[in-house]
Amino acid sequence: MKAEILCVGTELLLGDIINTNAAYIARELANIGIDVYYQTVVGDNNGRLKESLALAFSRADIVVMTGGLGPTYDDLTKETVADYFHKKMIMDDASLKSIEGFFYRLKRPMTENNKKQAMMPEGAAIFPNANGTAPGLAVSENGKTAILLPGPPAEMRPMFQDAVLPYLMKFSDKVLLSHNIRIFGMGESRVEEMLYDLMKNSTNPTIAPYAKAGEVTLRVTAAAETTEECEKMIAPTIKKIEAVIGKYIYGIDVPDIQTATVKELIRKKVTVATAESCTGGLVSERITEVPGASEIFGCGVCSYANEIKHRVLGVSEETLAKYGAVSEQTAREMAGGVRKLAGADIGVSTTGIAGPGGGTPEKPVGLVYIGIDSDKLTTVLKLNINYHKADERTYIRHMTAQNVFRLIMKALEDY
Amino acid sequence: MKAEILCVGTELLLGDIINTNAAYIARELANIGIDVYYQTVVGDNNGRLKESLALAFSRADIVVMTGGLGPTYDDLTKETVADYFHKKMIMDDASLKSIEGFFYRLKRPMTENNKKQAMMPEGAAIFPNANGTAPGLAVSENGKTAILLPGPPAEMRPMFQDAVLPYLMKFSDKVLLSHNIRIFGMGESRVEEMLYDLMKNSTNPTIAPYAKAGEVTLRVTAAAETTEECEKMIAPTIKKIEAVIGKYIYGIDVPDIQTATVKELIRKKVTVATAESCTGGLVSERITEVPGASEIFGCGVCSYANEIKHRVLGVSEETLAKYGAVSEQTAREMAGGVRKLAGADIGVSTTGIAGPGGGTPEKPVGLVYIGIDSDKLTTVLKLNINYHKADERTYIRHMTAQNVFRLIMKALEDY
Repeated sequence: MKAEILCVGTELLLGDIINTNAAYIARELANIGIDVYYQTVVGDNNGRLKESLALAFSRADIVVMTGGLGPTYDDLTKETVADYFHKKMIMDDASLKSIEGFFYRLKRPMTENNKKQAMMPEGAAIFPNANGTAPGLAVSENGKTAILLPGPPAEMRPMFQDAVLPYLMKFSDKVLLSHNIRIFGMGESRVEEMLYDLMKNSTNPTIAPYAKAGEVTLRVTAAAETTEECEKMIAPTIKKIEAVIGKYIYGIDVPDIQTATVKELIRKKVTVATAESCTGGLVSERITEVPGASEIFGCGVCSYANEIKHRVLGVSEETLAKYGAVSEQTAREMAGGVRKLAGADIGVSTTGIAGPGGGTPEKPVGLVYIGIDSDKLTTVLKLNINYHKADERTYIRHMTAQNVFRLIMKALEDY
Repeated sequence: MKAEILCVGTELLLGDIINTNAAYIARELANIGIDVYYQTVVGDNNGRLKESLALAFSRADIVVMTGGLGPTYDDLTKETVADYFHKKMIMDDASLKSIEGFFYRLKRPMTENNKKQAMMPEGAAIFPNANGTAPGLAVSENGKTAILLPGPPAEMRPMFQDAVLPYLMKFSDKVLLSHNIRIFGMGESRVEEMLYDLMKNSTNPTIAPYAKAGEVTLRVTAAAETTEECEKMIAPTIKKIEAVIGKYIYGIDVPDIQTATVKELIRKKVTVATAESCTGGLVSERITEVPGASEIFGCGVCSYANEIKHRVLGVSEETLAKYGAVSEQTAREMAGGVRKLAGADIGVSTTGIAGPGGGTPEKPVGLVYIGIDSDKLTTVLKLNINYHKADERTYIRHMTAQNVFRLIMKALEDY
C-alpha cells in the first residue's frame, strides 16, 4: 500500500508556517506499514492542485491531503477532489448541524461562508472535527483514496487519531495498539544507542523514537488480531526498555512531565509552592495547566525583582548582595521562603540567566539554579543549559521547568 | 522567475525530522521576488530523485535542493544532478583543502569517503561550507539552474545568506516587501467579511489572512522595482485596513501581543504587576518571555488558593465569602493588592473557571474576570469565553491572557 502526502496552502508554500503536518502524517503512516515516497506542498491554486493530485494518484493508492478546507473562496481542496473523482458537491446535513453547534457553543454568529464547509463530495466518508469547523473526509473509488484533513495541527492530529487511523485500518485486517514511553534526561541519540539492538530487531511490536523540546518518547506499537493480543506483545518490550533506561522514564501514556508530576503530587497528597525568577511563571503555569492542580498547589510567586525576592520571599539582603540573585544561596532561600509563605510541603525555585542579555564570564547565559526545600531535603541543582542560539531564552526557560518537574518527581520518592 | 524546492532525505520522508528548510528557503525566495509553486520531499533514491528533478525543471527555472550531500553511498544528490546536466564529476581541489582543514581544526581523522564531498559536477559554482564538510553548489545550463545545499539547517542557512542569495540576485528583477498586521478580538471569517472587497480586489499589494490561537494576521505584500516603491504601494492599503478594523489591531510587524505590550510599557516607563488565579502564571510567563521585561515587571503572584489571595494580596475575607473567588469584587481587590505589594503603576488580575471541572450554572466554565488597577482607572472586565471542547482549559487560559494584554494596551493610552 503506497501513499503520498499533499499539503495545500499558500502559507506553507511561502514559508510562513512550517509544515509539521507532513512529518506527523508520515510517521503515522509508517507506523501502520503504509509507504510514503513523496511529500508535496502546493498553494491554494485550482490548476496546480489538480495536477498534483493526478500526479500523486499516478504513483500511489492513497493521497493524504491537508489544508484548503476553510470557509473562504480560496479554500478549494474539496472541490478539486470532487472534480477529480467526478462527484457532485452536496450539502451534508450532519456536518452543517455540527458547524452550527460549534458556533452556538462559541456564541458567535455563523457567517454564510461557513456553510461551504458542510458541502461534501457525494459519497464521501466524513470525519467530524471536534476542534474546529472544517470536517475531514475521504473519497474512495477504483482503488484510489483521497483523505482530506484540516490544516491546523490542533484540528488535524486528533482527527487523525480518532477517525483517520480507524478508517485506514480497514485497508488492513489487523488491530494496532501503541503505548508511549516518556523520557526526560537523555537525548534521542543516547536513547537509541542504549537500546540499539532492541530497537533494530523489534518488528512487531515496533519501537519508534520521537524527540522534541528536550524530551524523547518511545512509541511501542503492536499489530495483531485483537487489542488483548497487542497488549501481550507490547508488555515484555516495555519491561526490557525499563530495565535499561528506567530511571529516565517519567511515565507511560501521560501527555507530559507536568501532568505526571501533578498526578503524583495528588496521589501522595503533597503540596508544592513555586518561586520563580528566570522562568517567570512558566512552572506555575505548567502546574496549573493540569486539571485538579488546585489540590496540591495554592501559591506561586514570580519574584523577578530582587526587592520582591527579599520582601515577599524573605531572601536576605546579605545573600543577594554577596552572592547575587543568580546563585545557589538565593535559590535555596527562595525555595524555603515560598514554602513558608504558602505553608506547602515542598518549595521549588528557579533563578538563572535566560538571555539573550545578562550573561557574564562568571555567570553565562544558560546558568540556572533550581532550589527545592522540604522537611525531608533541601538542595540546589546547578545547570549549565546548552542552548540553541535562535531561541535561547525560550529554550533555557523550558529546560529549567523540565528539570524542576524532574526534581519534584525525585523528591516525591521519599513520600 | 519560477523556482521549486526539492528536499532530499529519507528522514524527512518518514517524518523523523520536520522540514524547516523548505519554509526557510521559501521565505527567502519570496523575499527576493522568486515565485515558488511547489515544494517536494523525496527519499535518498536515485530513480525517484531523478524523476522529481526532471518534473521540477519542466515547471521551473531554478530548483533549490537540500540534503544528500553527505559522504556515504546513499547521498547521491550531486551525482543525480550531474547526470541530469550530463556533466562529469571531477575533484574540486579547493573544496578538498577546505574539508581537510575542517577535520584538522576539529582534530578528527578525515575518512576516505569524505573525499567524495569534494567531487563536483564540472563547471559548478561552489558555495563553501563554514559549518560542516559538504560544500554547496550550483549547476546552470540552458536557463535551468540547480542549487544544491546541505541538509542540516545550521549549515544550510548561513550558506544561503552568504553565498546563495548573492548568487540568486542575478536572476531577480523585482523586490518584494511585506508588512504583517496583527489583530486580536475578531475571528478570521469576520476579518475577511469586513474586508472582503479590499482583499479580493488587491493584487499588488496582496492581502493574505493567517489565523492562529485566537489571533489573525493580515500580510500585505507588494512587488516593485525598489523597497521604497513597495512601501509606497503598501501604505494606502494598510490605511484602508486600519480604517475598518483599526481598534482590533495591536501592532504591525510585532511578533505577538505580549511583545507589543511589553515594548509599549518600556517606552512609556510604566510598570506592571500580576495577580493570577485561573491563568496560573501564564500572564507573567508571557511578559517575562520578552527580553527586557525586567524593566517594567518585578512581581507576579499566582494566588491559586483563597488563603493566598487573602494573606498575600490582601483580598478581604468578606469579599471571598460573600462573592466567591471568581467574582468582579475579588478580581478588583487582587489587582489592587498586587499593585500595592509590588509598588507597580498597574496591577492586573485574573480569576475564572478554566475547566474542565468547577463550573456551575451561575459560574460556568469560561467565566473569567480580569481586573486592572492604576492611579488612572480601576475596572473589571467580565468575559464568557467560548471554548473548543478538546482544549478548553488551555484555550480559556490563553484567551484570558490575550485579553489581559489587550486591556493593558488600552490602559496605556492614558499614559
